[in-house]
Amino acid sequence: ERTGDAEVVYGAGKTPEQVVELLRTLHETHPGHAVLATRLTVEAQEAVTAALPEAVVDPVGRTAVLGSAPVLRGTVAVVAAGTSDAPVAAEAATTVGVFGANVDLITDVGVAGLHRIMSARERLDAADCLIVVAGMEGALPSVVGGLVGVPLVAVPTSVGYGASFGGVAALLGMLNSCAPGVTVVNIDNGFGAGVFAARVARRAAPAEVKSQ
Amino acid sequence: ERTGDAEVVYGAGKTPEQVVELLRTLHETHPGHAVLATRLTVEAQEAVTAALPEAVVDPVGRTAVLGSAPVLRGTVAVVAAGTSDAPVAAEAATTVGVFGANVDLITDVGVAGLHRIMSARERLDAADCLIVVAGMEGALPSVVGGLVGVPLVAVPTSVGYGASFGGVAALLGMLNSCAPGVTVVNIDNGFGAGVFAARVARRAAPAEVKSQ
Amino acid sequence: ERTGDAEVVYGAGKTPEQVVELLRTLHETHPGHAVLATRLTVEAQEAVTAALPEAVVDPVGRTAVLGSAPVLRGTVAVVAAGTSDAPVAAEAATTVGVFGANVDLITDVGVAGLHRIMSARERLDAADCLIVVAGMEGALPSVVGGLVGVPLVAVPTSVGYGASFGGVAALLGMLNSCAPGVTVVNIDNGFGAGVFAARVARRAAPAEVKSQ
Amino acid sequence: ERTGDAEVVYGAGKTPEQVVELLRTLHETHPGHAVLATRLTVEAQEAVTAALPEAVVDPVGRTAVLGSAPVLRGTVAVVAAGTSDAPVAAEAATTVGVFGANVDLITDVGVAGLHRIMSARERLDAADCLIVVAGMEGALPSVVGGLVGVPLVAVPTSVGYGASFGGVAALLGMLNSCAPGVTVVNIDNGFGAGVFAARVARRAAPAEVKSQ
Amino acid sequence: ERTGDAEVVYGAGKTPEQVVELLRTLHETHPGHAVLATRLTVEAQEAVTAALPEAVVDPVGRTAVLGSAPVLRGTVAVVAAGTSDAPVAAEAATTVGVFGANVDLITDVGVAGLHRIMSARERLDAADCLIVVAGMEGALPSVVGGLVGVPLVAVPTSVGYGASFGGVAALLGMLNSCAPGVTVVNIDNGFGAGVFAARVARRAAPAEVKSQ
Amino acid sequence: ERTGDAEVVYGAGKTPEQVVELLRTLHETHPGHAVLATRLTVEAQEAVTAALPEAVVDPVGRTAVLGSAPVLRGTVAVVAAGTSDAPVAAEAATTVGVFGANVDLITDVGVAGLHRIMSARERLDAADCLIVVAGMEGALPSVVGGLVGVPLVAVPTSVGYGASFGGVAALLGMLNSCAPGVTVVNIDNGFGAGVFAARVARRAAPAEVKSQ
Amino acid sequence: ERTGDAEVVYGAGKTPEQVVELLRTLHETHPGHAVLATRLTVEAQEAVTAALPEAVVDPVGRTAVLGSAPVLRGTVAVVAAGTSDAPVAAEAATTVGVFGANVDLITDVGVAGLHRIMSARERLDAADCLIVVAGMEGALPSVVGGLVGVPLVAVPTSVGYGASFGGVAALLGMLNSCAPGVTVVNIDNGFGAGVFAARVARRAAPAEVKSQ
Amino acid sequence: ERTGDAEVVYGAGKTPEQVVELLRTLHETHPGHAVLATRLTVEAQEAVTAALPEAVVDPVGRTAVLGSAPVLRGTVAVVAAGTSDAPVAAEAATTVGVFGANVDLITDVGVAGLHRIMSARERLDAADCLIVVAGMEGALPSVVGGLVGVPLVAVPTSVGYGASFGGVAALLGMLNSCAPGVTVVNIDNGFGAGVFAARVARRAAPAEVKSQ
Ligand SMILES: Nc1ncnc2c1ncn2[C@@H]1O[C@H](COP(=O)(O)O)[C@@H](O)[C@H]1O
Ligand SMILES: Nc1ncnc2c1ncn2[C@@H]1O[C@H](COP(=O)(O)O)[C@@H](O)[C@H]1O
Ligand SMILES: Nc1ncnc2c1ncn2[C@@H]1O[C@H](COP(=O)(O)O)[C@@H](O)[C@H]1O
Ligand SMILES: Nc1ncnc2c1ncn2[C@@H]1O[C@H](COP(=O)(O)O)[C@@H](O)[C@H]1O
Ligand SMILES: [Mg+2]
Ligand SMILES: [Mg+2]
Ligand SMILES: [Mg+2]
Ligand SMILES: [Mg+2]
Ligand SMILES: [Mg+2]
Ligand SMILES: [Mg+2]
Ligand SMILES: [Mg+2]
Ligand SMILES: [Mg+2]
Repeated sequence: ERTGDAEVVYGAGKTPEQVVELLRTLHETHPGHAVLATRLTVEAQEAVTAALPEAVVDPVGRTAVLGSAPVLRGTVAVVAAGTSDAPVAAEAATTVGVFGANVDLITDVGVAGLHRIMSARERLDAADCLIVVAGMEGALPSVVGGLVGVPLVAVPTSVGYGASFGGVAALLGMLNSCAPGVTVVNIDNGFGAGVFAARVARRAAPAEVKSQ
Repeated sequence: ERTGDAEVVYGAGKTPEQVVELLRTLHETHPGHAVLATRLTVEAQEAVTAALPEAVVDPVGRTAVLGSAPVLRGTVAVVAAGTSDAPVAAEAATTVGVFGANVDLITDVGVAGLHRIMSARERLDAADCLIVVAGMEGALPSVVGGLVGVPLVAVPTSVGYGASFGGVAALLGMLNSCAPGVTVVNIDNGFGAGVFAARVARRAAPAEVKSQ
Repeated sequence: ERTGDAEVVYGAGKTPEQVVELLRTLHETHPGHAVLATRLTVEAQEAVTAALPEAVVDPVGRTAVLGSAPVLRGTVAVVAAGTSDAPVAAEAATTVGVFGANVDLITDVGVAGLHRIMSARERLDAADCLIVVAGMEGALPSVVGGLVGVPLVAVPTSVGYGASFGGVAALLGMLNSCAPGVTVVNIDNGFGAGVFAARVARRAAPAEVKSQ
Repeated sequence: ERTGDAEVVYGAGKTPEQVVELLRTLHETHPGHAVLATRLTVEAQEAVTAALPEAVVDPVGRTAVLGSAPVLRGTVAVVAAGTSDAPVAAEAATTVGVFGANVDLITDVGVAGLHRIMSARERLDAADCLIVVAGMEGALPSVVGGLVGVPLVAVPTSVGYGASFGGVAALLGMLNSCAPGVTVVNIDNGFGAGVFAARVARRAAPAEVKSQ
Repeated sequence: ERTGDAEVVYGAGKTPEQVVELLRTLHETHPGHAVLATRLTVEAQEAVTAALPEAVVDPVGRTAVLGSAPVLRGTVAVVAAGTSDAPVAAEAATTVGVFGANVDLITDVGVAGLHRIMSARERLDAADCLIVVAGMEGALPSVVGGLVGVPLVAVPTSVGYGASFGGVAALLGMLNSCAPGVTVVNIDNGFGAGVFAARVARRAAPAEVKSQ
Repeated sequence: ERTGDAEVVYGAGKTPEQVVELLRTLHETHPGHAVLATRLTVEAQEAVTAALPEAVVDPVGRTAVLGSAPVLRGTVAVVAAGTSDAPVAAEAATTVGVFGANVDLITDVGVAGLHRIMSARERLDAADCLIVVAGMEGALPSVVGGLVGVPLVAVPTSVGYGASFGGVAALLGMLNSCAPGVTVVNIDNGFGAGVFAARVARRAAPAEVKSQ
Repeated sequence: ERTGDAEVVYGAGKTPEQVVELLRTLHETHPGHAVLATRLTVEAQEAVTAALPEAVVDPVGRTAVLGSAPVLRGTVAVVAAGTSDAPVAAEAATTVGVFGANVDLITDVGVAGLHRIMSARERLDAADCLIVVAGMEGALPSVVGGLVGVPLVAVPTSVGYGASFGGVAALLGMLNSCAPGVTVVNIDNGFGAGVFAARVARRAAPAEVKSQ
Repeated sequence: ERTGDAEVVYGAGKTPEQVVELLRTLHETHPGHAVLATRLTVEAQEAVTAALPEAVVDPVGRTAVLGSAPVLRGTVAVVAAGTSDAPVAAEAATTVGVFGANVDLITDVGVAGLHRIMSARERLDAADCLIVVAGMEGALPSVVGGLVGVPLVAVPTSVGYGASFGGVAALLGMLNSCAPGVTVVNIDNGFGAGVFAARVARRAAPAEVKSQ
């Protein structure tokens, strides 16, 4: 099982009963895989906890995981600017783990306080892939991309108001990043970034090989 | 003459003859002021040089100035990210001078190379007002605004392609800056930023008073 | 402490308990500063009043202030068109005070009744910086900017319906103002305008110096 | 012939030969009417002048008129902010005349210089309908609509750059005018405003009747 | 009192108490005028009915009127396509009456059933001004404007879903009408159309004069 | 060969030589089919005429056809509002023929002159599928769709200016048509409408069968 | 009765009582037709079930049908990508039946699992018209349109988040389909697609005729 | 030199002389690296060929390369839908090579002809990273992403017309891809995709390690 891909339930628009049922069924038919559910309402989270006590529910990232992830390979650093970006960063981090890579979570490193992101430079450099989560003007990926040459996936968040247009300002900022080698996923799509980054990290050669 | 306001000719859509004629007339009726012309075509620049040899023409910023600026008071630092932003920075710098403040021009300080902007920190801090010019994702004002507490006017430029939408991405980035105290003008509007910043700088108390 | 910058809690998306806790902590760690909380829900306002009786809560601007502002320097005139713009104007005015400048509040001066704004001309002229708040077509900054040469920050509000697009019409109007020297902040961003204007006003020379 | 409607050729996308031919044919089939051609290229204007010497060609408004207008009834005041708005104002004024009403042209009355528009108040008040032409932020209709109660048609122009989006900023400003009773036509549509206003003016009772 | 203008309370965002209080105060200070309140919530309508029994409340158009309109002069035909457009048509009709013109209401005349609009042709022709209310594709004004030469104000409504974008499709359709002489107001702005059309109708010469 | 599909060369962005070469090659490899080239520049049209004299070139629709169409089955009525819509209508009509159906072309039937479209009613009713081409407000499909129950494909054109936004206004109008059973293709996509309508018409039962 | 058109009640914005009343009245006045109600709230569905027990209510598609459809002719295949698209597919399928054609429903055939859509190829080929329902990127119609030459109507759904913009991404994808002969209806407009496709299918010759 | 990063000249807006001079200077100061110039006009390409005969100029991708790339590691498959997408695919492929990875170019595999993309499946599967280039509806990445689990970077192109909005339709399609693990770069940004994919491929473990 090379890619480490998990089964996934997209919780938006599903009833708590449907979520529980899908998790249970997928877990039974794919006993060797983890099953991930995302975008869970509070009600769905409670229903999962009640019906499937072995599931791990994360209220911040609004996810539930049932079954165990594959042996982890490689490391993804998940970097987030502010506390409002925490839910998307958590969805990304959980997805990375479920899809089979280690996570190094680096938070509270917004561009208006450069020393914080600069003091994280070594951890950034040690990762096999970066996920950079930011709302508002979405400038963090450009700054991080200027510091290290690690493949970088940017996730715009819908944090903001007025002319942030629900994350469009951050999305456009990231698509136009002056740092080369920045790729982008949909607004608030921590899941998609996590799948992508886990695939990159799992396929990366170990550090000793890379530095040869 | 307190505000230092100059007379201005907006050159867009005007023939070279109209530009020359307007510069001449405004200069005669306001002999004590400088007269500034902006957005000049190459043809208009040549016509001004030929007809008004005492005018100072800047082909980068596409401006012409006739007559002398008021005694300069205060300093505006004009900061630009890349070489493509040079025309807008030049328009801003010329406007600041014509409207009566000193200019400190700081270029080539994009966010993908943080050491350059950080090594300019003292010059930023010494200014009475900042104009920060940037295209693409427009992240530079957030980074600068996180470094110093000087009033900061951001100018988005139309540099970029695709999802930069002619400067809209940079404009939105700046309007959503996570650094507090960033204000914004229209795309490519170096002139407007220059008028505003010169007014702030001319009104600023001298450094010795501020530090009391 | 030169810039007069306060500590700030952005209340949007935070629980009442988080707001109270953040205000208390920041006040303890920065006893010499004021702490400002913005965008408070009614519940958060009540929690602050109950837990921190010395805090000053403003239900119109949806702000709370704990601790005392620095010695005020300079004056910002906050100008608002209609009664619907009052919350944004109040957020701006409170921010100006907390960041260390005096406020002169001028309301009910919409462009469809010119005599009102014209009779306020002397107060506008006496200020060190102007904040002009307007929704719908956002025309007020152009009219005010045509009356006086004081630095002017325009704040578009989300007041309106249909083709106002939640403040976009006002934002575009202000970015395209025919009065030179108008700068703009995000829709409903009274806070950002307040920080900026307070910085300008605090740095302004006293009137006697300026008129020398 | 009550409405005074003329025959019209829309010149955009037509060759000079097609324009000449259409003007000639419509003039022959409607000898009692005026025939109006709009949006004429310089080449089409020259072809009309050469082939139809009795036609009146206006290079500013890019129109040609062949044949005589009906007896004029009522008055439309055409108000324009800046010199860049002149072509649209000219198209409107010519259309008003061809559709049978008198024109009072009032130019150079932008909102950043209020005394000019205020000193035109009596002329505004004397008109049966107003056409107000403005680009950039499109604020002029709100100011004029606050001064007088005459029916007012606003015409946004494509004058501007950057976030004016080819006239969209002015269009939105006018649609959101805080002055009640402002109606709007398409960007640069001086023709449509002229047809509408001429109809209103021709149908208006003479002043002595209205003041009864 | 020539224009027939009424006092107006814009009810959106106001509490029932504020609406009642404003209606009462304006009625007392302007006893000779009607006072109109628009955009009233059900709660505000009930509060007005309870507190001001002489007020006329219209639950369809969400308006209340206190005091008597001026002597009516001229006639405005208010034309609406579908039943969903009824609230906007009612707001327009009430406004026309309060601002002093007669109303002829013509409903259920959508463009997909041409015989209905064609059989209303005489009533359209007899009016001094037309208000045409339509949502979705906003085609009705083009069809009506092709039938008669009466001045026509189009009101787009927010009726529709998907790519109607809250009335933007109808707004754009009306701004681009191929029938000359169509003017447009903001989405759902029956009030603004009513003020404008009443002004046109009151100023119109009586039919016998027009036909001279 | 059931569907009657032809080979197609999309001429946009191709050199005249490439167009000629592609037409020749496709004709040789598919001798039994017609080959259609669309979006040809004037230069490409001339090159085709010179190199392939048996090709039929249409300068209005900017197409070339080489080889003979299949036996025609069924009829598509192509309806166009104004002369500016002629190129798109011609592209549609040629495509219909090449894809194997008869064409009935009905032009100059804009919604501002209802009698013309109404007098074409019988021809509309006799068709197996309708293509309705319109720019500006795009109202024609709603009117036609209200007259007859024949399947109707609407083609918005980029004719117009200002708020027509290059055909977006017409596109939105058609997507929001109040006549049920209207489908839409991309702006100016006469080709796509032609392929679709020819498929419908070829598959339609003959009139005698339908009326059983 | 050739077209098979039913009477229709558009339930959005109507009270349960209004829906019941309209269904009853239309059924009485058109006893030979089916009456279809769409966009019913849960409350309206319950009211219909209670008041009109012979009506068939579908909670997925949110429709109610009263009376019997015409004799069915031809077949429409309704193809849907994901479970979230089910409501729109159900609205389309019910409409097809009520307007007189057979339905072949093919679900769970998203483009990220090509074997499923490819194994449905024969059923696609056997239909007289296709309705393809998809949200998110809206790619399914291009893939289906590349497989078979049957007339294809695409329905974008509002399924998605962030940059799906309520169905706009899917709508644009479908309008730009690289498969020729794809037409499109409004976002979530299963009804419109159903009317159109039923008309095409009812008019189609039987298979034996087509294959002659 | 681990990342393999090259020096880059962005040719847009630069004169041929500037491009030659920058290539020469960067080559001299970084003799061990390749130098890449992108977005070259035909004039700039000719100037480079004339002045720097050892440079490799690609007229399709509009690039020039001077100096030799690092030892290549890993493989990037560059997949393109149609011939119009060739320039962007070429820019991507050249960048991949210059940044140190092997390229496998797979073209002419649009979604409307599925067998072509499906027959390329093994080559897709063998790559360390995929770049998928597509215009119009941008559906190709979803189809490819459904076939293989390799990290996939999608590049929307500005190919198309009308509602493709210069590549926006393709960009939105890709951001909303239903295949998980698709990331996106700016419209036409083959360069950015190439930098990113080369970084991923160079860091990937060799196949024998991955399959352990
Ligand atoms: N400048 C203009 N803007 C918009 N519509 C116009 C303009 N000039 C003429 N028209 C309209 O175009 C019609 C004539 O179009 P055509 O037959 O193409 O010459 C007239 O009946 C007018 O309604
Ligand atoms: N429905 C409406 N739409 C737009 N403007 C309105 C409406 N109703 C009232 N107004 C305007 O709102 C003003 C009163 O606003 P306010 O003082 O907030 O009640 C009036 O002078 C009108 O110009
Ligand atoms: N006018 C047009 N609009 C949209 N698509 C077209 C047009 N003409 C041809 N096509 C499509 O372009 C394809 C051929 O493209 P190409 O191989 O680049 O010549 C054909 O199969 C058609 O599907
Ligand atoms: N085709 C391209 N698209 C986007 N960015 C590019 C492209 N080519 C080069 N660049 C960027 O442009 C920078 C060089 O810009 P300059 O100093 O103006 O020549 C490089 O570091 C790259 O990050
Ligand atoms: Mg951020
Ligand atoms: Mg930049
Ligand atoms: Mg306002
Ligand atoms: Mg203006
Ligand atoms: Mg309608
Ligand atoms: Mg049309
Ligand atoms: Mg889908
Ligand atoms: Mg494509």
